[in-house]
Amino acid sequence: MNKAMYTGSFDPITFGHVNIIKRAAKIVDELLVLVCFSASKQYLFSPEERVALIQESIATLGLKNVKVSFYEGLVVDYAMKHNISLLVRGMRAVSDFEHESAMSRINNELYSEIETIGLFSDPGVSHISSRFVKEIAKNNGSLQGLVPEPVQIKIKEKL
Amino acid sequence: MNKAMYTGSFDPITFGHVNIIKRAAKIVDELLVLVCFSASKQYLFSPEERVALIQESIATLGLKNVKVSFYEGLVVDYAMKHNISLLVRGMRAVSDFEHESAMSRINNELYSEIETIGLFSDPGVSHISSRFVKEIAKNNGSLQGLVPEPVQIKIKEKL
Amino acid sequence: MNKAMYTGSFDPITFGHVNIIKRAAKIVDELLVLVCFSASKQYLFSPEERVALIQESIATLGLKNVKVSFYEGLVVDYAMKHNISLLVRGMRAVSDFEHESAMSRINNELYSEIETIGLFSDPGVSHISSRFVKEIAKNNGSLQGLVPEPVQIKIKEKL
Amino acid sequence: MNKAMYTGSFDPITFGHVNIIKRAAKIVDELLVLVCFSASKQYLFSPEERVALIQESIATLGLKNVKVSFYEGLVVDYAMKHNISLLVRGMRAVSDFEHESAMSRINNELYSEIETIGLFSDPGVSHISSRFVKEIAKNNGSLQGLVPEPVQIKIKEKL
Amino acid sequence: MNKAMYTGSFDPITFGHVNIIKRAAKIVDELLVLVCFSASKQYLFSPEERVALIQESIATLGLKNVKVSFYEGLVVDYAMKHNISLLVRGMRAVSDFEHESAMSRINNELYSEIETIGLFSDPGVSHISSRFVKEIAKNNGSLQGLVPEPVQIKIKEKL
Amino acid sequence: MNKAMYTGSFDPITFGHVNIIKRAAKIVDELLVLVCFSASKQYLFSPEERVALIQESIATLGLKNVKVSFYEGLVVDYAMKHNISLLVRGMRAVSDFEHESAMSRINNELYSEIETIGLFSDPGVSHISSRFVKEIAKNNGSLQGLVPEPVQIKIKEKL
Repeated sequence: MNKAMYTGSFDPITFGHVNIIKRAAKIVDELLVLVCFSASKQYLFSPEERVALIQESIATLGLKNVKVSFYEGLVVDYAMKHNISLLVRGMRAVSDFEHESAMSRINNELYSEIETIGLFSDPGVSHISSRFVKEIAKNNGSLQGLVPEPVQIKIKEKL
Repeated sequence: MNKAMYTGSFDPITFGHVNIIKRAAKIVDELLVLVCFSASKQYLFSPEERVALIQESIATLGLKNVKVSFYEGLVVDYAMKHNISLLVRGMRAVSDFEHESAMSRINNELYSEIETIGLFSDPGVSHISSRFVKEIAKNNGSLQGLVPEPVQIKIKEKL
Repeated sequence: MNKAMYTGSFDPITFGHVNIIKRAAKIVDELLVLVCFSASKQYLFSPEERVALIQESIATLGLKNVKVSFYEGLVVDYAMKHNISLLVRGMRAVSDFEHESAMSRINNELYSEIETIGLFSDPGVSHISSRFVKEIAKNNGSLQGLVPEPVQIKIKEKL
Repeated sequence: MNKAMYTGSFDPITFGHVNIIKRAAKIVDELLVLVCFSASKQYLFSPEERVALIQESIATLGLKNVKVSFYEGLVVDYAMKHNISLLVRGMRAVSDFEHESAMSRINNELYSEIETIGLFSDPGVSHISSRFVKEIAKNNGSLQGLVPEPVQIKIKEKL
Repeated sequence: MNKAMYTGSFDPITFGHVNIIKRAAKIVDELLVLVCFSASKQYLFSPEERVALIQESIATLGLKNVKVSFYEGLVVDYAMKHNISLLVRGMRAVSDFEHESAMSRINNELYSEIETIGLFSDPGVSHISSRFVKEIAKNNGSLQGLVPEPVQIKIKEKL
Repeated sequence: MNKAMYTGSFDPITFGHVNIIKRAAKIVDELLVLVCFSASKQYLFSPEERVALIQESIATLGLKNVKVSFYEGLVVDYAMKHNISLLVRGMRAVSDFEHESAMSRINNELYSEIETIGLFSDPGVSHISSRFVKEIAKNNGSLQGLVPEPVQIKIKEKL
């Protein structure tokens, strides 16, 4: 289990994502956190901003085997080009499970080398989603306990 | 259990909502039905129209402890300002349950005084959603048994 | 069980749809595959293109009791006008099940003659959705095993 | 769609089962209601009693194409021997759906001729289960609205 | 919302149950925690022991409006006899939700005065079940964080 | 990701289990397949027989990093004693997901070093369960495609 990849929109990164990164970093040799985007979709933060927020959010955790990057395209294409065969996914709820299950089959059909492992969301953060976070931020609610400090600061500037 | 709040888009109110209002009104002293909206989203009815439709729809039920209002912002902010600590939610299906479960955690983290109670949708109305209702209305289908009469009339004028 | 109808957006038809058509055609006398659309929604293919793709995709299967058409409006209105009382639905996952369950109740309330039967998605194709297919196509991924050949060709022309 | 089979323990038959029988009888030419049992399991009623209760419960419905029988063994073996290729299943909840989905795959693997169709439980009876009925009966609760009259009478004699 | 009832086997009480009791006690005037049992089922603790464990487990919480008792029979019969019309249920997962939803319909059919409210399990304790607790205890695992101290002590004596 | 453990009753091993073993063996350095049992439960095969059936079933796969053993007790105790911190779980359906999610939290609370990864069941085998297999075997149904040949032979001798 040399290299693994944890992908998502991370618009923005939440404590739910941080939790998965920390745990995945322990069980694989190298972990790439990959910000995915599509030119046709609207995001609050640019891919570069999202990468920076992830880096700042995990800076103090001492995770030496984690890198962050961004990419537009099929996740599995990126994985194959960079010799990564393992995808890490966080699963919060039943709806996540079914989506991830279908995605893992699709990805495995595109490239049979690709395997997906799911980590069960930690109880303390399984209710957090980037969508909720943005909703609360727009209405000036507190993001304490939902997103790391760099995100709390940056999201206020944006909105 | 003095005051409680039942929030939603109510765009428009359905017999599913009416059922929850009737039942919630029995178990709390005061019930506020709060029409929520976001300036960035599109609705069929204005907040004022939705409040009026709710009031007309429950007018004949004799629910003396129910008030209706509207608000843009975080539901829990409104609740705290008006000294309401109880949120009432209707649960139709598994997807509702998971969404409401996450929302109740988020709200409880924003203000620890806030508690959420879920009522199980009545079998006779658990299949109704405002989205279905609008879809049917657009195609001139019958709304008998789905929404109260005032909504049946008003929705035809709109479309 | 004379006539039945299998409706959907089919934007585009996938091997998941083909599987349901084949199985439904075996258990009913006549099967109408009906492409549904709404003028207010955006699709990749026009209704006529989708009908053509379905016809080409099932051409070699020798299904003599299957017809394909398109319609804008309530599915059950079409069914009643054409003397069809049976709707066929494919169910892939829990979220499908809940949606279809609510839809079948709504349709049965609109016209009590309407009955809905669900077929369980075949394991080999239960992960496929038109949305996934378009996502992969946009990123030049392989659609082998996901959609019939006519769709593979046509979707490349479109994108 | 000539012949179909609706199987179960029916220990005892409930209004949920009756609803499925009525609806299935409309969409197939012949319906066999088959009481299944296993010598190693414990039941409240004998197979013969359960057959009788089903017959009495549907006697007044005028369903001329419905027969009732019982069998110990694999449902699909019985189906093949009697030239029945269609299984009818009622689906009340998500847990039912998943179980039925797996069963339909298993049965289809045993005999590829076998197809399973699911009917969505009617909202008015989707909460009823034979287990609940027996629990209530043991505690002298009212079975009105849960099981047909012949079952109400017989279950009191048993307990 | 004068009187409410929270029922269960409580074999034994866990921190999940304690959490629901604390929260329910805040939103109703009087809360009865009712240990239910059936003479035909096997339990680790007797009804009297379970009542005592509940009382000891909540003794330090200062919940003056909570009483504990036990009963064999239909929960709703007890409720009606004692003039209680509200049932409180904790919901941990999708399977709980579906079971509780069906139960609330059954109970409401037995007595239309009965209403059920569901509380969403707290993230920190939503994974705990009495069954897991007994399994761990049998294998000498630590029950720290799963059950209150009185249960930790008593369960060791039993096993 | 040095050592991982895949636990279960394996009574008996199915092609679903074999699929998980093959895939897990690829992503970890060493995989221990651990047959768990409880003296108070009834099984078809003894722990020793189950170990032998697993070994025979995977013999031809050339998995050099897989060992098989059995154990009565808490899975995590065994893991800690043998310096294994990773548990591998297969997830077939929503009900599996919820059970595994709760188990992973419990195990992580017992020993914080323990991490659980879930693999999504392969579509071709996600409907198979040991319980179904035994049910079919008892009724002399074909186990082709459900369990490896050594199990097909041995199960006939048993029943």
